[in-house]
Amino acid sequence: MTKPSTIRIGICGLGTVGQGVWKHLERSRADLQSRLGVTIELHRGAVRDLSKRRTVDIPVEKLTTDALAVATDPSLHIICELIGGTGLAREVTLAALKAGKVVVSANKALLCDHGAEIFATARKHGGHFLFEASVAGGIPIIKAVREGLVANRFKLIYGILNGTCNYILTRMVQEGASYPTILADAKRLGYAEADEALDVDGWDTAHKASILAFLAHGVWVKTDQMIVEGISKITQADLKHAATLGYGIKLLAVITRDFEANQVFVRIHPTLLPKDRVLANVNGVFNGIAVTGDVVGTTTYIGRGAGQDATASAVISDIADAVALLTTGKAPMLPEEAASIHDRGRNPSIAPLDKIRSRYYLRMTVKDEPGVLAQVATVMANHAISIASVIQTSSERSDAASLILTTHESDERAMGQTLADLQKLSSILEAPLLLRIGDFEE
Amino acid sequence: MTKPSTIRIGICGLGTVGQGVWKHLERSRADLQSRLGVTIELHRGAVRDLSKRRTVDIPVEKLTTDALAVATDPSLHIICELIGGTGLAREVTLAALKAGKVVVSANKALLCDHGAEIFATARKHGGHFLFEASVAGGIPIIKAVREGLVANRFKLIYGILNGTCNYILTRMVQEGASYPTILADAKRLGYAEADEALDVDGWDTAHKASILAFLAHGVWVKTDQMIVEGISKITQADLKHAATLGYGIKLLAVITRDFEANQVFVRIHPTLLPKDRVLANVNGVFNGIAVTGDVVGTTTYIGRGAGQDATASAVISDIADAVALLTTGKAPMLPEEAASIHDRGRNPSIAPLDKIRSRYYLRMTVKDEPGVLAQVATVMANHAISIASVIQTSSERSDAASLILTTHESDERAMGQTLADLQKLSSILEAPLLLRIGDFEE
Repeated sequence: MTKPSTIRIGICGLGTVGQGVWKHLERSRADLQSRLGVTIELHRGAVRDLSKRRTVDIPVEKLTTDALAVATDPSLHIICELIGGTGLAREVTLAALKAGKVVVSANKALLCDHGAEIFATARKHGGHFLFEASVAGGIPIIKAVREGLVANRFKLIYGILNGTCNYILTRMVQEGASYPTILADAKRLGYAEADEALDVDGWDTAHKASILAFLAHGVWVKTDQMIVEGISKITQADLKHAATLGYGIKLLAVITRDFEANQVFVRIHPTLLPKDRVLANVNGVFNGIAVTGDVVGTTTYIGRGAGQDATASAVISDIADAVALLTTGKAPMLPEEAASIHDRGRNPSIAPLDKIRSRYYLRMTVKDEPGVLAQVATVMANHAISIASVIQTSSERSDAASLILTTHESDERAMGQTLADLQKLSSILEAPLLLRIGDFEE
Repeated sequence: MTKPSTIRIGICGLGTVGQGVWKHLERSRADLQSRLGVTIELHRGAVRDLSKRRTVDIPVEKLTTDALAVATDPSLHIICELIGGTGLAREVTLAALKAGKVVVSANKALLCDHGAEIFATARKHGGHFLFEASVAGGIPIIKAVREGLVANRFKLIYGILNGTCNYILTRMVQEGASYPTILADAKRLGYAEADEALDVDGWDTAHKASILAFLAHGVWVKTDQMIVEGISKITQADLKHAATLGYGIKLLAVITRDFEANQVFVRIHPTLLPKDRVLANVNGVFNGIAVTGDVVGTTTYIGRGAGQDATASAVISDIADAVALLTTGKAPMLPEEAASIHDRGRNPSIAPLDKIRSRYYLRMTVKDEPGVLAQVATVMANHAISIASVIQTSSERSDAASLILTTHESDERAMGQTLADLQKLSSILEAPLLLRIGDFEE
C-alpha cells in the first residue's frame, strides 16, 4: 500500500451539513495537516444546482453536478456522502467503496436500510465506511462505544436521539401548549421539517437505534423488527400526570440485550423516564445516550444531536481518522470491528416484539358513569396485568372522565390483548394511549 | 518495523486496579484476539509481595517483585504501569519507554508532575504513552477530546473529577450531616483513603485537570500555577444557602482559554453550580465533564470516575489501541498529537491567577451588632466589588450572626485584597469562606 502525501477529499452534497464541513475543514486544514503530516485538499464538491447561493465561498471550478463522478474520481481518497436519503446517496457510497475509497457519512437512513450491503462492499473492495455523524450529531458516541468501551458488553443502551422531538416535548412542558401548536411553531422556526413524519413518528430515532444496536451487538435490526411509536399523541394531560407520578416524557430508543437468551430488543417510544435520571433533564434540541457496560457501568453522553456545526464536528473527526488510516497503513476496519468485541460470533437473535417487558402507562377517556373502573380493572386482571396506580380526573368532554393507570411489569403481548379488549368496552370512548415506563436497571 | 503476531503484556502493580485489568483482560482476551488478529498474552506481573492473597488467580510463575525487570523485558510489548505515585512508577515508565514499549498508565500524579519528560522520552526512543484511565475512570474522555472533538478549540472545560469529594458532598446534602461526620463514615466504608488530603484538598482533581489542559491546549500547567482549594470548609449552612440561591456545590476543575490573550486558566475549587446545569445533578461517586468546543458546542460525559472495574475498562481500551498501534504500523503518537490540533504552535501562556474572573460567594461570621453590614459593604466597595445578594441569619454562636454575600463578577486580585481587609475588621469573628460561582458561559 503506497501512502499518499496529499489526501484529496470530495464532498457529495453541499447542503447545510456539507457547507458546515467545508467551512470548518478549511479553517482547521492547516492544523490537521500539521498534525497528520500530509497535505489535505478539499478537491471537489457535487451539488444539485451549480447556481445556488451558498454561505461558504467555494470556487465554482471545484463544483460539479455529477456526484457519481466525484465518488469514482481516481484522484480522490475520501468521499463525504452528505446527500441524504437512500437513492443517489447509496449509489455514491457503493461506487466510492468499490473504488477502494474511504466514505465518511452522516446518513443514518442509508446505514439502517443498507448497512450489511455497505460493509460487505467495503470489505470486498478494500474501502472503508465511517459514520460518527450518523448518530447523535457532535457527540462522539460511535467512537466511545466502539473504542472507548471496547472491554464491555452492553446490556442496556437508551437515548434521546432526535432533537426535533426533544425540542417539541420540552416546549410542551415549558409552555403548556398543545402538540399541534408547538409543532407548527417549530416548523416556522426551522426546528421541524415541513414533512415532520420522519422525526415525530420515530423513524429517524429508529434508524439511529439500528446503528447503535449493530455497534453494540453486531446485528442489523430493521425498523419492522422494532416497536416504533412517535410523540404525536402526547397531550398536556400526559405530561402533567407523568410529572405528578415523578416522570418526564422523552422519546427514547431503548436497546436491550438478554445475554442468557442471546436476544436483542430494540424499541422506540415515548417513555416515562424517572425525573432523577440524567436523560430526563436533557432538554431542547440536545441528545443524550446512557450506555450500560458490564465492566464500566453506565456512562452518559450529552450534546447537540443535529445542526450544521455539531454534525460537521463529527464528520471532521471521521476525516481525521480516515487520513490516519490512509497514511499509516492501519489495518482495514471490518464491519465486525464495529461491533462490540464480546459479541463476535455470538450472533444474537432479534427478540419477538411481544416478549418485550415493561411497566406501562395507560390513559383512557371513559364514560363518566359508575362501574367503568371495575370493567377496566377486570380486563386487565384477565390478562394478569397488575395495576400500580390509578388517577381519575375530569376530561375535556363533559360526559366523560379521564382515567390514567400505571401497571407493574408486563409484556407487549399481554398489553396488546388488553388494549384490544378495552376498546371493545362501550364505556371506553377513544382509543387508549399506551406509554412505556422507563425505570431501567442500569 | 516488524509486526508481531503475539503481543505480550506486563502489568506492574497488581493492586485493586491491576487485578481488575488482569481479570477483565483474561475474560475478553479471546474476543480481543479475534478482533485484532493477534495472540495476546498476559505474560508477567510485578508485585511488592509475592505471598499476598489476590482476588484473581495469577500463576505464581508469572509474578516477580522486580518491576523494572518487567518494564525492560525484551519479550514484552505493552507495560501497564498501575503502581501509582511518582517514584518507582516513574522509573518503570521511563525504562519501558526507553525500550520503545507502549506504556498504558492510570497515573495522573505522574503525568501531571512529569508529563513533559514522559512524552519527550517516548518521542526520543519510539515508545508510546497511553493514559485514558488517568482521568475520569471509565469515561472515555481522553479519546473524546483528542479524537472525537478534533475539529474543535476549547474555550471551557469543567468537571467533577474526584469521586470521593462528590460522594462526600452528595451525602452532606442528602443527610444533612457535617463534613467531618461524613468523611469519617466514608473512610470506614472505603470511599475515602485513610489520608484523605490528596482527594479532599483538591490535589487529585488538580492532577487530572493538568492532563485535560494539556490535551486541550498543549501546555503543562503545574499545580502551583492553579488555584487549588478543597472541600473541607464547606458546611451545611453553605449547602443550604447555595440551594436557596439556586445552586448546588461541587468541587470542580475549571479550564478556560482566552483565545485573544492566548492564555490558559486552570482552577480547582468548590463551586456554586446553577441547579439547571447537568453536572449539578451528577451525584455520589460519579464524575462528569462538560467540554465546550467552538464547533460542536457543549458535550457532556458522565460515569464512574474510579474503582476497579471502571478503571480497568479504560486501561483495556488503551491496550486495544496499543495492540492496533503495534500490529498495523500506525504512526507514532507524538505528545503534540495529544493536544487539540488548533493549538499546535500557538503555545498559550498560563494566566496569572489574580486575573481569573468569577462571581463570588462569601460567608462570614460577624458580631451581631449594628453597623457591621455597612463596614463589610464599604470594604467591598473600596475594591470595586459589587454585591449581588445578601442573606443574614443567626449563627451557631449566640453573640454572632452569619452573613452571606454574593457578588457580581470580579477577579481574584480584588477578592484577595477584600478578604485581607475584611479580616482586619474587629466585627469579623472568623476567617471568611470564599467560594466561586460557576455560572459559566458554555
